[in-house]
Amino acid sequence: METTHQSVLSLYTKTRTFTEKLVETLKTEDFVVQAAKHVSPTKWHLAHTTWFFEKFILEVYIPDYRHYNEAFLFLFNSYYETVGEFHPQKRRGLITRPTVEETMDYRRHVDQEMSRLLAERVGDADIDGLVEIGLQHEQQHQELILMDIKYNFSYNPLYPVFKEQVDASYGRAPELSFFEFKEGIADIGHNGEGFAFDHEGPRHKTYLHPYRIANRPVTNGEFIQFMESGGYEQPEHWLSDGWRTVKENQWKHPQYWVNKDGEWHMFTLSGLQKIDLDAPVSHVSFYEADAYARWSGLRLPTEQEWEHAMEKLEVDGHFMEHEQYQPHSIYKGDGTMEKAYGDVWEWTQSPYVPYPGNKPLDGALGEYNAKFMANQLVLRGGACVTPQSHIRATYRNFFHPQMRWQFSGFRLAEDV
Amino acid sequence: METTHQSVLSLYTKTRTFTEKLVETLKTEDFVVQAAKHVSPTKWHLAHTTWFFEKFILEVYIPDYRHYNEAFLFLFNSYYETVGEFHPQKRRGLITRPTVEETMDYRRHVDQEMSRLLAERVGDADIDGLVEIGLQHEQQHQELILMDIKYNFSYNPLYPVFKEQVDASYGRAPELSFFEFKEGIADIGHNGEGFAFDHEGPRHKTYLHPYRIANRPVTNGEFIQFMESGGYEQPEHWLSDGWRTVKENQWKHPQYWVNKDGEWHMFTLSGLQKIDLDAPVSHVSFYEADAYARWSGLRLPTEQEWEHAMEKLEVDGHFMEHEQYQPHSIYKGDGTMEKAYGDVWEWTQSPYVPYPGNKPLDGALGEYNAKFMANQLVLRGGACVTPQSHIRATYRNFFHPQMRWQFSGFRLAEDV
Amino acid sequence: METTHQSVLSLYTKTRTFTEKLVETLKTEDFVVQAAKHVSPTKWHLAHTTWFFEKFILEVYIPDYRHYNEAFLFLFNSYYETVGEFHPQKRRGLITRPTVEETMDYRRHVDQEMSRLLAERVGDADIDGLVEIGLQHEQQHQELILMDIKYNFSYNPLYPVFKEQVDASYGRAPELSFFEFKEGIADIGHNGEGFAFDHEGPRHKTYLHPYRIANRPVTNGEFIQFMESGGYEQPEHWLSDGWRTVKENQWKHPQYWVNKDGEWHMFTLSGLQKIDLDAPVSHVSFYEADAYARWSGLRLPTEQEWEHAMEKLEVDGHFMEHEQYQPHSIYKGDGTMEKAYGDVWEWTQSPYVPYPGNKPLDGALGEYNAKFMANQLVLRGGACVTPQSHIRATYRNFFHPQMRWQFSGFRLAEDV
Amino acid sequence: METTHQSVLSLYTKTRTFTEKLVETLKTEDFVVQAAKHVSPTKWHLAHTTWFFEKFILEVYIPDYRHYNEAFLFLFNSYYETVGEFHPQKRRGLITRPTVEETMDYRRHVDQEMSRLLAERVGDADIDGLVEIGLQHEQQHQELILMDIKYNFSYNPLYPVFKEQVDASYGRAPELSFFEFKEGIADIGHNGEGFAFDHEGPRHKTYLHPYRIANRPVTNGEFIQFMESGGYEQPEHWLSDGWRTVKENQWKHPQYWVNKDGEWHMFTLSGLQKIDLDAPVSHVSFYEADAYARWSGLRLPTEQEWEHAMEKLEVDGHFMEHEQYQPHSIYKGDGTMEKAYGDVWEWTQSPYVPYPGNKPLDGALGEYNAKFMANQLVLRGGACVTPQSHIRATYRNFFHPQMRWQFSGFRLAEDV
Repeated sequence: METTHQSVLSLYTKTRTFTEKLVETLKTEDFVVQAAKHVSPTKWHLAHTTWFFEKFILEVYIPDYRHYNEAFLFLFNSYYETVGEFHPQKRRGLITRPTVEETMDYRRHVDQEMSRLLAERVGDADIDGLVEIGLQHEQQHQELILMDIKYNFSYNPLYPVFKEQVDASYGRAPELSFFEFKEGIADIGHNGEGFAFDHEGPRHKTYLHPYRIANRPVTNGEFIQFMESGGYEQPEHWLSDGWRTVKENQWKHPQYWVNKDGEWHMFTLSGLQKIDLDAPVSHVSFYEADAYARWSGLRLPTEQEWEHAMEKLEVDGHFMEHEQYQPHSIYKGDGTMEKAYGDVWEWTQSPYVPYPGNKPLDGALGEYNAKFMANQLVLRGGACVTPQSHIRATYRNFFHPQMRWQFSGFRLAEDV
Repeated sequence: METTHQSVLSLYTKTRTFTEKLVETLKTEDFVVQAAKHVSPTKWHLAHTTWFFEKFILEVYIPDYRHYNEAFLFLFNSYYETVGEFHPQKRRGLITRPTVEETMDYRRHVDQEMSRLLAERVGDADIDGLVEIGLQHEQQHQELILMDIKYNFSYNPLYPVFKEQVDASYGRAPELSFFEFKEGIADIGHNGEGFAFDHEGPRHKTYLHPYRIANRPVTNGEFIQFMESGGYEQPEHWLSDGWRTVKENQWKHPQYWVNKDGEWHMFTLSGLQKIDLDAPVSHVSFYEADAYARWSGLRLPTEQEWEHAMEKLEVDGHFMEHEQYQPHSIYKGDGTMEKAYGDVWEWTQSPYVPYPGNKPLDGALGEYNAKFMANQLVLRGGACVTPQSHIRATYRNFFHPQMRWQFSGFRLAEDV
Repeated sequence: METTHQSVLSLYTKTRTFTEKLVETLKTEDFVVQAAKHVSPTKWHLAHTTWFFEKFILEVYIPDYRHYNEAFLFLFNSYYETVGEFHPQKRRGLITRPTVEETMDYRRHVDQEMSRLLAERVGDADIDGLVEIGLQHEQQHQELILMDIKYNFSYNPLYPVFKEQVDASYGRAPELSFFEFKEGIADIGHNGEGFAFDHEGPRHKTYLHPYRIANRPVTNGEFIQFMESGGYEQPEHWLSDGWRTVKENQWKHPQYWVNKDGEWHMFTLSGLQKIDLDAPVSHVSFYEADAYARWSGLRLPTEQEWEHAMEKLEVDGHFMEHEQYQPHSIYKGDGTMEKAYGDVWEWTQSPYVPYPGNKPLDGALGEYNAKFMANQLVLRGGACVTPQSHIRATYRNFFHPQMRWQFSGFRLAEDV
Repeated sequence: METTHQSVLSLYTKTRTFTEKLVETLKTEDFVVQAAKHVSPTKWHLAHTTWFFEKFILEVYIPDYRHYNEAFLFLFNSYYETVGEFHPQKRRGLITRPTVEETMDYRRHVDQEMSRLLAERVGDADIDGLVEIGLQHEQQHQELILMDIKYNFSYNPLYPVFKEQVDASYGRAPELSFFEFKEGIADIGHNGEGFAFDHEGPRHKTYLHPYRIANRPVTNGEFIQFMESGGYEQPEHWLSDGWRTVKENQWKHPQYWVNKDGEWHMFTLSGLQKIDLDAPVSHVSFYEADAYARWSGLRLPTEQEWEHAMEKLEVDGHFMEHEQYQPHSIYKGDGTMEKAYGDVWEWTQSPYVPYPGNKPLDGALGEYNAKFMANQLVLRGGACVTPQSHIRATYRNFFHPQMRWQFSGFRLAEDV
């Protein structure tokens, strides 16, 4: 998502509108609930992304700015400790007021103020930079909205449909093969041209040992083989913390899988569907990805290996814009790298840590990424619920290893 | 609430309509949430009371009855183990579908079927008896709806208003005095004329020792004296389980109380209000009621003492019909017993156990009361959120001792 | 256990010595551990009972008394809030110092001081009264020591033996029959002659309805029938709180039962043993006792019914003095009431509440019983681990309904 | 700790004897308890290290070997899933049998069998290799024994003394300065000469960016400045997971610190002592180390930076052999690197992950390290409770970031 001065306002409008269009099939009730601490109500997402513009731009650049509602500063701050107290994350689903309509009014109000400000301050690089962050942030919440609706709906035995599936197309996964990369010094990280988050840089040298990386992600069909061979009952494949997680949660399959009359199904945003054996497996935790890799005698790639292998490829694939919010089984089948981008986020074996020489943003926005650099792992490539314009080769996503409500799969690697 | 054959249908319609009128100020969002396991979403109450008629009457008396939606049998059964599985109580607030509108449609459907059945089976004593239980049940959920909305709203820092207060009137509590009752055998329990729940009978002899019972409930002003004298910090007043509860929950005042700028306020269904010092204290647990009584050198009455003292009084007072959902400070002031009925449920010191010779109802309705006869205590007299026609001298309400989201206060007693 | 002035010292010495003799087979390691919050290390029991004499007698009656160790006032106070802070109950098993030897030295020190005081103050009624309470307290801890050792040992897969079984004798339970009692006013509670705890009085009138009570407790063999008929899987027999307890703890049989090669065994203080089908069932919770009674179409007796039925019987039976710490299957077989006293504590359906007109002791000893009068139920009759001299018809024991590490069984009753 | 064929038996005897000598001041009771899941009773350590030799050597190399006690295979396996079931870690402190004496007998038995086997199989490289791992393992448990005794004792308000302090000597910390290292490819990891754990290799190239590393660890005095400036109350210094940990546990200072009459003390293995302001701070979690570093505008070193800076230094310092189980304030003061080895383990910012090309050991011993490579961080350099012969430049220790019962401090670093 590149912005130029002249297009800032139109990009702002386009992105904000897209968010609202995304949720237009929801009923009012659907906007409110929160089935676990780590998911948020859609209403909260709509308000929080709006708060972001109000807090970091309007409040700063409009003299004597009057907030839409002072209480929203408390209710819709997510985790920015340095700008004030915030409502406990686990209680977001208990707040029925403001209503959805009032929340949309809050959006309209801030959008108007933003439009006015951007018109007055055309070409202000500071403001444009903040707007860009705000819109990238909005895009991340577009993905979160879909993840969280899926999670919330999954608690309803009626299996609600968020969006009817239109034309699901099916294909066959190419045979598993590997691309090999040589040993040596590689440049990793963002070079500063165009937008990137603070944690993507600086571009820096790293030493890569010779490795091979798979031509495609692991499929549902392959993952079923792991399950059927007893993978979830055999501790020898698992990291110690992972095995404890498996036992405590009685995991026996990826999240959202349901065995119905002996056949594997998956709860999707289009309701319960039969498993597509050739599509990439998704909604697995790092622990499951890692266990599968050990079981198969291989390993996950590091994030540097992944980036080095993929950085020359065009960012193209099955993204949110297709409005089919499931990884699918359409492959190019031409022997080139498949599904590097889109379909599923790919777990790497790399803990989420700062790059050498990295400096977080100044001020409260420094909390955006840096403070999460503990106990999380990096995922790469984007998924079928990620806006295409949001992704690049250097993009680093991150989750705790037991999390699996994100659309996460994985690709195998090995030493040469 | 007495029914005669000719009036069953009209009573049915009146009670069902009243429930819907009760919630007409709610926004759609308000119907959905559940801030704790022990409260339920309004939407769930509306559906569950409907399920009650469908399950226990329509399904039984209409040949080949087709359910409105089979899944609702699972979703809206509360706790009747003997009629099938049910959705976990703690997850009621995660169910956004059926929507409020669909739930109202479910009500209309069942109401139509009920109307038809009642028209066809005028004078059928079995059906009329079940309808009566169903309507008493509906009334209990009318009260629960108000209790639960208050609880849910209390988590919102915006202090939402459920119903604007109209004309709050204030008075002065008469001085505390006691009525004395002689030793001897007393008859306790319901005599079988008119409706009563199974646990109210049989009427039976019990031996009462001489006692005195207070002319009115303990007031907010008196309770503040307990607080200010250190009542919540002094273990000597408290039952052992109560003291642990106080410490674990860091209780320092009744539920819903807020100290704002040095003055005590209370969150009410009409928003945050100043404490009315002369009104009965409410939203105290059994532990707090018991601690206050010990602190004052007195005790709580037994349920038999309460019933014996009040059974000749007319059931009149400050009930739900007044649409002022707070205990108030209007007293008769004529030296007679005050607020025996209405305003606040009054904790007794009596554990909720079966009366001698008691027999629960046959079948699933036997689960209505009997299985809760452990770890709970009896409250008497009804509250400002209870329908007046629902209450009688023998009526037994019950809650666990740490619960306080019900409108519960207490009245003192002592041995002679 | 009756004391007269001349015998106070000898009774003191006898009781204190008996405690030490009781634990002489233990290894040092056995004295230290605590497998759950509600059990205590043997070492703690030895110290706490000693603290009781030091705190309530020596400290009061010896001018300028110097404590053996000031820190023990904190470490060995159990729950007397009004005499000072105490060490958290759940951490008693983490305290290795004082050692067992040092704890025995503490006992010897206090015993010497007590001997001296009792010699100087022969016939002092206040002191004699406190000594009596202290010795009754010591007896209660003798039983607790056995209960807690059994509980702690049960966590060891080696099934340690506390005391080798000597001559286990087996008999046959007489057929179940019932004794009938007439309706009317009965006198219940202790009349003040001889020692009784404060909660046993005053003797007072109560109205009893006609009832029948079983000639013996329910046996292991009968309880197995309940289990085999699906008792633990059928919610209809259970109180609601009980059913939740069953599911959360996955109860399928009484505590300490082990199915070994298809045969029921029980962990005892003499190791793992085959179940004696004719002995009273023990280590069942109130919930299990109540469920069995409902399953069989009967009920548990009230504590008043129990006392009224048993008060004329001699207090004789299978008690701690037999040193066979399991209920056994020896019956008189003469058609009279069997095992009213000894073998197992018998759950009643009566919540533990104060008798009419009851007054707890003044001062800290008022905390001994009164503050536990919530959420517990009364058991009657003593068990095979209770000292015989400790029991009388009016004796009230009490436990929370889910507890079952005590030697608790039950006897059936029914309405006439 | 290098072994040669001729010295295997003598090294075995020396190491095993040292373990027993280490605990000779303990009372029997001290061997038994376990104050938290992550610590173990001393008795368990003595048995588990013995089980290690029995399981991985005697059982394999002695035909028809009969175990000392079959039940010990279950009781004293720590976490080796692939060799069988094991007793739950959190219940190690509930096992009183075998007694300490029986445990010592188990040690003697296995030592005799080992002596016999080693005499028969002099020069057997496989056996010698396993013995070496077993002795390295024994050394790790020597350190764990001291860590765990300290932790267990810390729950006793009597502050027990494990070992009287002999001659505590005090010095002054040199001023903080930094050593600078150039950018370039560095070799990291063990080269295979002499013993190393599987996770220390292979030696491999890595790219280091220019950095500076401090001349000494951060001191208690410096850490107090962080505390006094509000470090524990200011979220901006903390990782998100760290800040949650601080709030949930109400951390306000390092573990074992006690403010007594306004002065900071520390519970040590020699009882409560005044803080030595010039000694390295210890018993801080990764979160605290990282927060301090951010507060001071610097960062922690990576494990590669640490190793590269220290690998040429002699492994010398304040280790377990000094029998003064606290970091001290004696410095060389000659301008060279201080306390690289000994005193405190130093947190690095490096998550514990496998080196490129790393292969865990085959079989069950592959579980020794590899399965812990998630959510933990690397510490380097050894501490005052580590045997000196156990440490080398490439040694990788690892703990979860919230853990702080190990003797952990940290050293600052920065980018050039």
